[in-house]
Amino acid sequence: MDKVGLDKIFEENQERYLEEWKEFLSFESISTDPAYKQNCLDCAEWLSRHLSKIGMESRLLETPTMPVVFAEYKGSPGKPVISFYGHYDVQPADPLDKWKSKPFEPELRDGRMYARGAEDNKGQLFYFFKAVETLIANNSLDCTLRIFIEGEEECGSAGISARLQDWGDMLKSDVLMVCDTGCIQPGIPTITMGLRGIIMLMVKLTGPRHDLHSGVHGGVIKNPATEIARLVASFHNEDGSIAVPGFYDSVLPIDPEDRKLANVASFDDATYEAMVGAPPMGGEKEVSFAERRGFRPALEINGIAGGYSGAGSKTIIPSEAIAKVSARLAANQDPAESLQQLIDHIKSNAPAGLSLEISEAEVGGGAVRVSAKSEAIKKAASVLRQIVDRDPVFMWEGASIPIIASLVEASGAEPLLIGFGWEEDNIHSPNESFSIEQFKQGFLYAGLLLSSYSS
Amino acid sequence: MDKVGLDKIFEENQERYLEEWKEFLSFESISTDPAYKQNCLDCAEWLSRHLSKIGMESRLLETPTMPVVFAEYKGSPGKPVISFYGHYDVQPADPLDKWKSKPFEPELRDGRMYARGAEDNKGQLFYFFKAVETLIANNSLDCTLRIFIEGEEECGSAGISARLQDWGDMLKSDVLMVCDTGCIQPGIPTITMGLRGIIMLMVKLTGPRHDLHSGVHGGVIKNPATEIARLVASFHNEDGSIAVPGFYDSVLPIDPEDRKLANVASFDDATYEAMVGAPPMGGEKEVSFAERRGFRPALEINGIAGGYSGAGSKTIIPSEAIAKVSARLAANQDPAESLQQLIDHIKSNAPAGLSLEISEAEVGGGAVRVSAKSEAIKKAASVLRQIVDRDPVFMWEGASIPIIASLVEASGAEPLLIGFGWEEDNIHSPNESFSIEQFKQGFLYAGLLLSSYSS
Repeated sequence: MDKVGLDKIFEENQERYLEEWKEFLSFESISTDPAYKQNCLDCAEWLSRHLSKIGMESRLLETPTMPVVFAEYKGSPGKPVISFYGHYDVQPADPLDKWKSKPFEPELRDGRMYARGAEDNKGQLFYFFKAVETLIANNSLDCTLRIFIEGEEECGSAGISARLQDWGDMLKSDVLMVCDTGCIQPGIPTITMGLRGIIMLMVKLTGPRHDLHSGVHGGVIKNPATEIARLVASFHNEDGSIAVPGFYDSVLPIDPEDRKLANVASFDDATYEAMVGAPPMGGEKEVSFAERRGFRPALEINGIAGGYSGAGSKTIIPSEAIAKVSARLAANQDPAESLQQLIDHIKSNAPAGLSLEISEAEVGGGAVRVSAKSEAIKKAASVLRQIVDRDPVFMWEGASIPIIASLVEASGAEPLLIGFGWEEDNIHSPNESFSIEQFKQGFLYAGLLLSSYSS
Repeated sequence: MDKVGLDKIFEENQERYLEEWKEFLSFESISTDPAYKQNCLDCAEWLSRHLSKIGMESRLLETPTMPVVFAEYKGSPGKPVISFYGHYDVQPADPLDKWKSKPFEPELRDGRMYARGAEDNKGQLFYFFKAVETLIANNSLDCTLRIFIEGEEECGSAGISARLQDWGDMLKSDVLMVCDTGCIQPGIPTITMGLRGIIMLMVKLTGPRHDLHSGVHGGVIKNPATEIARLVASFHNEDGSIAVPGFYDSVLPIDPEDRKLANVASFDDATYEAMVGAPPMGGEKEVSFAERRGFRPALEINGIAGGYSGAGSKTIIPSEAIAKVSARLAANQDPAESLQQLIDHIKSNAPAGLSLEISEAEVGGGAVRVSAKSEAIKKAASVLRQIVDRDPVFMWEGASIPIIASLVEASGAEPLLIGFGWEEDNIHSPNESFSIEQFKQGFLYAGLLLSSYSS
């Protein structure tokens, strides 16, 4: 199908698309918290039924943890085989009091859909499914398409990782499409050339068996809140670089060509500050914005907690304190090795007098790098040019989709990381949203690209 | 009255005392959280009625914030004038899930009353009131007694502080009794010879206007959780001493006689660890346990928070992070000066790229030192000897009752800081309790001492 045909169908069916999309968004498929397990399962089943309804053969693939929704459409022999990866799980919705409408009661306001997962990843999945539906309904899909939608992307992809080896033939494909990335600006189509890897852990320091009076015990006992702060402070040097011994050892120097393309897709400090509300003054002091953003490792505290943080004062020495830590890895860093380096650093910097516990340690996955010269990238770029009548830009993404490195390896496919997210979508934050305009661009991209592989 | 008489009355009336005490404990008089203001007012009114019922003239003294419960009993002219200070407010009860019975539904288990405030301060107030009731009912009270029970001790004593100047004559007294301290061991009566001063503040660092994805923004923006940790880490030197410039300048060297008495009331590391569950390895490395516990300043983190601390991972860079900080001050440190030094230190160590807010800053009050040679101390020691047939010990308390320094000055009285608390009472923590045995000792002490001042 061509752009005009797809556009017409979108306009005719938009209302129905939005209603179905809302249904998908209403599942509280929060994978990181076991309390929501049934919600995740319900979501997977709904999705599998939906993929059957649009004309694919769909079923759930069991894993040791959460099922993967699988759907297949068989094209003519000799036509390309496309695999598509995404996730039906979402991040937790807290802090709930900062949401204008409820995170799992999707609301359309001013051309944007507000809900947890509105963009990441349910919104970007749903335009793809609607494009597939359109092509099948119009007898225009003739490549083989295999969809894998997992339920644990936000918490380490354990289930799908455990089964990749078993699914060898099912995964083998020419192109691996992933719509879970963004554009550098709305309306500027963006091809993601890299993803950072990720590792995670939680560190806990425990002191007295219960909170103590800070007057009676102040200056006597080691304070877990003070000590978690001192431990966290040991993670970075004064110049903002990571102080974990050996962490940078295998990080490769940046290719000059990559650096050039990365700078095209970059923006200045003032634009960044206007966008997020604070200047880009984090990370390594001597490294440029574009490089810190896309190429260099970063170690971040995702949460720190200990003692009383409510209104007024409560003069205690807390019994325990925790920090949730994750690091983004650069190309060529081995995630297992990096995790061990971090654990070793924590152990050798842990304070005497408190007990140390490291938990939730996860080797998320390695970084991904795509060649700008691949056939798949060229075809996608040509499709993107049709949609907005300008050249796409190439971006090195700082975020991670931990499973992608493994999927690329298992599928033997050329990865195609193209999505239509944008900063103001607030993914992972309160008031996540996705605009109808972005949704439609994604629909056109998926429809045109699959048409192109079908012809 | 003598010990035998008081003992008999206690045993005859114990059940009623416990029921009344439970009623007092059931008020959620949490002063630090404005949500409980009405509960605090209800508690004050109940208490004032109760003091009328036992034979005193009672009323509420208005302050700019919470009322002070005042009650007076007039003794014969020429007899000593005793003032008594305490507080009807309590600490917050969280974490609620760690309480075995509900904090405001008092429960008697194995000879201990469990409730928030069971010891601090409602339990220690209530044995005093029951002793007064007993003496009045038996025509045995003949000194003048003036009771001042405030409602903001746990959050800075703003109300009573604002009115002390106005109450000059009402406050003037020979002895100021305070039952808000503890014993070094159950059964060993303890006279508190000193209290540390206290200052408090909250520091907040704010970065992006909402939580950001830690992949997209990791290494780009300053992370408020990382930076609050680095700021907190700047509060202490490697040797455990406080790194705030000038903080120790006015701290006096310890008197050798005080050091000797303090060591008598001290205990060894193993006993301490068995008591609280962690070794006494905090504070200044080169300073002895007894001195760190009673004489030296201490700077403690009462709470630290930022980002996600629930189950599983949430890979964000938090929008903001806070630390609640308090410091205990040694004799001769000026609280206003110490607070300013801390604020200056925070300002000069605050990270660029984030906005700094210091709030809840409070000059709690200075330290108190009592002379072991005072007449009041000698009389109290003799009463304590009658109760348990051994010499009391003298303790330098690390905790603060910020208002005491001001009360001592305004009343011109000799302070008498004697209470019957004990470590396992868990004050300020879940499962706070006070044993009937401790309660009875307090009753005997108050009854005998007031009898002695009446004869």
